[in-house]
Amino acid sequence: MKKTRVAILGGTGYSALELIKLLLRHPHVEIAVITSRQEGSPHIGDVHPSLWGRLDVRCEDLGPIAVAQRAECVFSCLPHGVTASLVPHLLEAGARVVDFSADYRLHDANVYAEWYGEKHADPARLGKAVYGMPELFKEQIIPAELIANPGCYPTAASLALAPLLKAGLIEPTDIIIDSKSGVSGAGRTPKLTTHFPECNESLSAYNVGRHRHTPEIEQTLTIASGQKVQVIFTPHLVPMDRGILSTAYTKPTGSVTEAQVMDALRAFYADKPFVRVVKHLPGTKDTSGTNFCDITARVVRDRVLTISCIDNLIKGAAGTAVQNVNLMYGYPETTALL
Amino acid sequence: MKKTRVAILGGTGYSALELIKLLLRHPHVEIAVITSRQEGSPHIGDVHPSLWGRLDVRCEDLGPIAVAQRAECVFSCLPHGVTASLVPHLLEAGARVVDFSADYRLHDANVYAEWYGEKHADPARLGKAVYGMPELFKEQIIPAELIANPGCYPTAASLALAPLLKAGLIEPTDIIIDSKSGVSGAGRTPKLTTHFPECNESLSAYNVGRHRHTPEIEQTLTIASGQKVQVIFTPHLVPMDRGILSTAYTKPTGSVTEAQVMDALRAFYADKPFVRVVKHLPGTKDTSGTNFCDITARVVRDRVLTISCIDNLIKGAAGTAVQNVNLMYGYPETTALL
Amino acid sequence: MKKTRVAILGGTGYSALELIKLLLRHPHVEIAVITSRQEGSPHIGDVHPSLWGRLDVRCEDLGPIAVAQRAECVFSCLPHGVTASLVPHLLEAGARVVDFSADYRLHDANVYAEWYGEKHADPARLGKAVYGMPELFKEQIIPAELIANPGCYPTAASLALAPLLKAGLIEPTDIIIDSKSGVSGAGRTPKLTTHFPECNESLSAYNVGRHRHTPEIEQTLTIASGQKVQVIFTPHLVPMDRGILSTAYTKPTGSVTEAQVMDALRAFYADKPFVRVVKHLPGTKDTSGTNFCDITARVVRDRVLTISCIDNLIKGAAGTAVQNVNLMYGYPETTALL
Amino acid sequence: MKKTRVAILGGTGYSALELIKLLLRHPHVEIAVITSRQEGSPHIGDVHPSLWGRLDVRCEDLGPIAVAQRAECVFSCLPHGVTASLVPHLLEAGARVVDFSADYRLHDANVYAEWYGEKHADPARLGKAVYGMPELFKEQIIPAELIANPGCYPTAASLALAPLLKAGLIEPTDIIIDSKSGVSGAGRTPKLTTHFPECNESLSAYNVGRHRHTPEIEQTLTIASGQKVQVIFTPHLVPMDRGILSTAYTKPTGSVTEAQVMDALRAFYADKPFVRVVKHLPGTKDTSGTNFCDITARVVRDRVLTISCIDNLIKGAAGTAVQNVNLMYGYPETTALL
Repeated sequence: MKKTRVAILGGTGYSALELIKLLLRHPHVEIAVITSRQEGSPHIGDVHPSLWGRLDVRCEDLGPIAVAQRAECVFSCLPHGVTASLVPHLLEAGARVVDFSADYRLHDANVYAEWYGEKHADPARLGKAVYGMPELFKEQIIPAELIANPGCYPTAASLALAPLLKAGLIEPTDIIIDSKSGVSGAGRTPKLTTHFPECNESLSAYNVGRHRHTPEIEQTLTIASGQKVQVIFTPHLVPMDRGILSTAYTKPTGSVTEAQVMDALRAFYADKPFVRVVKHLPGTKDTSGTNFCDITARVVRDRVLTISCIDNLIKGAAGTAVQNVNLMYGYPETTALL
Repeated sequence: MKKTRVAILGGTGYSALELIKLLLRHPHVEIAVITSRQEGSPHIGDVHPSLWGRLDVRCEDLGPIAVAQRAECVFSCLPHGVTASLVPHLLEAGARVVDFSADYRLHDANVYAEWYGEKHADPARLGKAVYGMPELFKEQIIPAELIANPGCYPTAASLALAPLLKAGLIEPTDIIIDSKSGVSGAGRTPKLTTHFPECNESLSAYNVGRHRHTPEIEQTLTIASGQKVQVIFTPHLVPMDRGILSTAYTKPTGSVTEAQVMDALRAFYADKPFVRVVKHLPGTKDTSGTNFCDITARVVRDRVLTISCIDNLIKGAAGTAVQNVNLMYGYPETTALL
Repeated sequence: MKKTRVAILGGTGYSALELIKLLLRHPHVEIAVITSRQEGSPHIGDVHPSLWGRLDVRCEDLGPIAVAQRAECVFSCLPHGVTASLVPHLLEAGARVVDFSADYRLHDANVYAEWYGEKHADPARLGKAVYGMPELFKEQIIPAELIANPGCYPTAASLALAPLLKAGLIEPTDIIIDSKSGVSGAGRTPKLTTHFPECNESLSAYNVGRHRHTPEIEQTLTIASGQKVQVIFTPHLVPMDRGILSTAYTKPTGSVTEAQVMDALRAFYADKPFVRVVKHLPGTKDTSGTNFCDITARVVRDRVLTISCIDNLIKGAAGTAVQNVNLMYGYPETTALL
Repeated sequence: MKKTRVAILGGTGYSALELIKLLLRHPHVEIAVITSRQEGSPHIGDVHPSLWGRLDVRCEDLGPIAVAQRAECVFSCLPHGVTASLVPHLLEAGARVVDFSADYRLHDANVYAEWYGEKHADPARLGKAVYGMPELFKEQIIPAELIANPGCYPTAASLALAPLLKAGLIEPTDIIIDSKSGVSGAGRTPKLTTHFPECNESLSAYNVGRHRHTPEIEQTLTIASGQKVQVIFTPHLVPMDRGILSTAYTKPTGSVTEAQVMDALRAFYADKPFVRVVKHLPGTKDTSGTNFCDITARVVRDRVLTISCIDNLIKGAAGTAVQNVNLMYGYPETTALL
């Protein structure tokens, strides 16, 4: 079988690294191009020493047309803002695109402008991109030309809450999401906040009330459940490499038991290969290095709690991207992901 | 000035270690006795290598009468249950006691039995112990014979919420406390959950809906504010040695601004030396190794959030104990704590 | 193609967990049996939450005959001492065995007794087991019935030093090996030394001058190079999950350049898929989660230094075991390992 | 008693932070000035949130004359190179200086040029600065005008080896020092190598054969022992905040027992308050947050091993600086350090 030639735009970050590792195990995909603006076309093994000897590719500084000539499918790991100026060219040149940035996640250009602080460069396409969360939008993903790959926090939070909202078990506007993430979620660019002696042995909340994943979570849950959802979302930085744990506090619409909540989760995920509804309280390490999302629920006093965890770089980024590509190209959904 | 002779019961744990380190800096206190059930009366420098050469005391296996003969003030770092069977003897023998266990924190023997799963051994004394949170109960602490030293989670949570409840700014029964703690809070006895390769690089919730600090928080806030307080409390285990960060989500009683909430906190703590009301989002490391509690607040949508952090072994245990003894014996409140 | 049915004895530890994860990716192997002495035949997903939903097997408490009836190949992850009493029965029943313990690594029963403090239970078989280090002993591994899977420290140290000794570039009796290991190397049984708040944020040497991997390293290098090798070996415990870094200080036999040393390493590993001779100074993270060993060398003053690193649970245990089985059963050497 | 007014040049780094914390406990010292080139004269509580509310000082951008007018003693925490251009002015203006940089540690301007890659700016003063290691050079420190505060690695290594060299127990030119340091030693400026997800869960050697502390160790041991000392020194980066552990491998000059080596260490440090000669294998955590250096020794085969550890920011920087000032100003040597 002919392999799908893929390109990776922006190969120097952590999501790109995880993506490459996954693709090296994918029997139907060939990494044809990796781009980077770093000078001197560095070898990918020099950019990521863990790839030394595993992939003989140099990072090139290429424009979208050149990329699309060599790859039919493009994973874009570029920052938001930059991405929306490239994607139109990639699509016009015939490539299918899986975008890791936030640029095509929100459907409303005004909401984008409000939370990202700048005008969107390609507003006409906003409603046409497919939000690439396979557990919720599989049918739209299969034929998609442009996938907005979900954010890491929205993945952990939405997978736990969507089934309960859809089943009408919880109120849509009294939702508190307290999330905790490992440091790799902040990217690979050195900053004081992610300098080892600053964040190691420390825990803090950040971007309280203004994290950009807030409208993304609300939009996803609103679409998935057909009712306007509003959340309070607080992210925290945890001294570990990877993993997100999301603890959500919701109000039941009526009297509900823990068993009913668990049953709703189990029913929703019965045929989904990467969500595990578990009885125990999951730890992020249970999902580390995997594409799994582990979810459980508890009823405490008058609240329904959900606890969900993922590897932020895999299920929260590169793993879901591969899962999307598997769906888009008709490969088994779990290829390269187990 | 004659020094106060103190005893430490149960010298092998982490709170006792921190207590000893603080007391070694205390000009008015002399460590007269350390007890432990370990065989062979080990030297404290062998039990805690960091104390090697700093304190020439052996751990003895002594009963309460013998302890009270050699020390006028007793810090008890023993487990709950055991403690309540010793304290009556210590008090009768004339010692003043600061108890690190939970045995005298709750005022109601039924609540104790419900959450701790056993009958209280000394129920008559329950209402007479003073809850040793100096920022809330200083006047009662000064003359106290028996101090119930507060739990670590209740300290971080209560210090943030008590002023707002007292000021009538937030509803007393719609409070969600999402707390995160370093591993030292679990004590020094090896267990699978605190085995390094299990909890390192992982984050998980535990004891959801049934952590024993829940009724302690509720009782403290109820007393402090004069209205029945009810909370949902969820603890999480974080891969770091020390530190608790408590993120609380509350509902304002009426329209309130962030400035008003901050002002209420600042007013309450204006003359309290160990609570710092800060504008930035504090990290646990800011308070690590200190007796400080850092607190801030934010208004997000229709909620008032408080974020507070402490060193669980100092402000959450040994530091507050020393602060209590400073008050009890008329020493400056900050002695040995700055 | 018919799959090879394998058994895993002692399925509760970390090496067994990594082994299971690797085997789940192996197209030619089927996990037929997992044993454990834990009561109640726990499901492997309860023993290792990360395996939840990935393998539907219960841990059974089975004897060697019963195991050999259901599996043709046995991975034994049991402690030393116990293993040597089971292996004879497994072999007699026709199984091929890959033993993770130290029981069949040393060829001399007296050396075993000296370092392990007990008489060997099966001394007759000592010289007949094959030391399963594929880079050094591939030909013997292919037909082997009993593989002594190498220790983690000996793997990192021997792979760096064997080529240089073999090439006659360094003196065989003036070798200092300073090794550093993550905590998972200490196993899954909780102990004070591996209790998170004890070993986190700390670094210490242990078993100085008496670590049991010393004679194993010496025997391996002696056999590989044909001259009596003697080493000083010092292990250190590092606050991280995984990884071993071995820094070796050796004396050149004559005048030698860094280029000559690197060439000798490159020549030796030219056709070995899992050893990467690198120019940069490798970090353990470069090999984390992989079966690679990264090696470099430097000449400093009058010494030749080698620096090598591995993932102690993969290349230092489960990965090499799978590599051995690939060789034993004629599968491509890298199957399930890339 | 009138307090000694001190200045801290370069107040934004980790050594300065630790220095400030120590000085806040010093009864005879007053922090009169803190300098920094940061714009806007930031408050020290904004630069270091842990100091919030503890010291009401703003960082000023001041020249040496202005500093010397307000402080009689200057702690300089500036980078090497910069320092040597300021120190002459500070001394001429009458200040006594404790310099944390490497600028005045080496006595030979050629050696400085060789290892630091630039010409020394103040070569005439090189031999006149006193190397501020109180355990070796106390008499010279007391009257000193300019103290070169020792490097962190040289402190851990020299304190272990100097007594044995001085006693003639070990050979001066066959010394291997394998050192491991926490990340704070790399300073507070964000870099890729100290970005949390890069160095966390990883261990690597760095600057092999060319670390600038090599000639400093050699010079110190040469002076202390009166014979030319040569070492091989290899530093490693360990995923923890603080701490250095130094494992040194030396050759005995003749037949020697472990007891003799330990006795030599004990005799040398009998009256030194901050070096603890211990029987057990020390861990860095035993000295964390303290000014102690813990040392032990072992005889393994034909080698004498020493293992020593310190807190790199305290005994390896700020603590020794305070110890030096205590000696210089006639305060008890342990003031503010226990």
